[in-house]
Amino acid sequence: MVKQERARRTREALIKSAATVFDRDGFSVASLTAISSLAGVSNGALHFHFASKAALADSVEEAAAQRLERIVTAPEGAAGNALQMLVDTSHELARRLTEDVVLRAGFELSRDQVRRRGPGLYRQWHRWVEGALKRAAGEGVLNQVTPEDAAASVVAATTGFEVLGPQDPQWLSHQTVTRFWQLLLPRLAEASALGGLVAAGSRPR
Amino acid sequence: MVKQERARRTREALIKSAATVFDRDGFSVASLTAISSLAGVSNGALHFHFASKAALADSVEEAAAQRLERIVTAPEGAAGNALQMLVDTSHELARRLTEDVVLRAGFELSRDQVRRRGPGLYRQWHRWVEGALKRAAGEGVLNQVTPEDAAASVVAATTGFEVLGPQDPQWLSHQTVTRFWQLLLPRLAEASALGGLVAAGSRPR
Repeated sequence: MVKQERARRTREALIKSAATVFDRDGFSVASLTAISSLAGVSNGALHFHFASKAALADSVEEAAAQRLERIVTAPEGAAGNALQMLVDTSHELARRLTEDVVLRAGFELSRDQVRRRGPGLYRQWHRWVEGALKRAAGEGVLNQVTPEDAAASVVAATTGFEVLGPQDPQWLSHQTVTRFWQLLLPRLAEASALGGLVAAGSRPR
Repeated sequence: MVKQERARRTREALIKSAATVFDRDGFSVASLTAISSLAGVSNGALHFHFASKAALADSVEEAAAQRLERIVTAPEGAAGNALQMLVDTSHELARRLTEDVVLRAGFELSRDQVRRRGPGLYRQWHRWVEGALKRAAGEGVLNQVTPEDAAASVVAATTGFEVLGPQDPQWLSHQTVTRFWQLLLPRLAEASALGGLVAAGSRPR
């Protein structure tokens, strides 16, 4: 049991180190030696857990997908309507992209030209955003726009924040995401629902 | 003169081949041999024109910046107000990103983790979008939103289209860009100007 626990910790340390090195150097340039060294383990230990750099990247992307799943899962006592939940979740995603290198590397790996594994996290996020907007339509809080069209624009904009963020943190700031919703909400929300919506997010920061 | 002309053509062929290989393999993986071979010239000829892969990437980005400059320069007899010009230009950019590998590679190089040359084409596009929205405000066609906030959202969304496009061409389609503007224009445009604006673009396709 102690041995299993140690193996689990080593695996997690390797995933975090890999994310850090992928985020810094890109998947193609990232060296396994840099990753094992950052995790404080031997190359042999790395190869015991991961057969290849590709396998390590898959595990980083999988860990990021789990984190994204937790982000989109509304907390207990979360805001009532689906449109506010979408606003709150996008703020949480932007904040986590700034702080969490595994989540950030997961998105980067999902659009890596060399890996070509498909849209991964972008598709996961797109599905969730579209689902939230469909729920908003069902609740009668969505204006005369289709959930599909609104989802495409929201996903495109949040992808832009994510891609531009590493070069200029302002793109992932609370202010930028708030201004985006200030712009979009009057177009998305039913007039009767608009007054109750908080573009800056309704959850305590 | 004939010699100069031949040198110019070789240089242009190398830039296009480099863009193709960067776009396919990424900057880090791209090999100079693959680039010279695709251009149909020797490695020696490549090194005569470009001292390094980094110099070649700089030239691709520069060529892309010139193309972007031509795209944002309104054609003779272009649509009257600055908001329509922004809509038309974003359609043109999306179309050109699909067709022109040098332009596409230029944006990709501008966000390459390894090169870290700074936001390049994104900054160029951002400045132009903000300028267009300021002109729209001056013309009285912009609603009560600031050009800066509107520009950030437009740049974020177009960046999303550009980044997601290579994996799924639908993101750079005329339909997706049109739907984005159908969503945003009623929020951006003065009521009196809205009726005259064409979300699908006012230029012949």
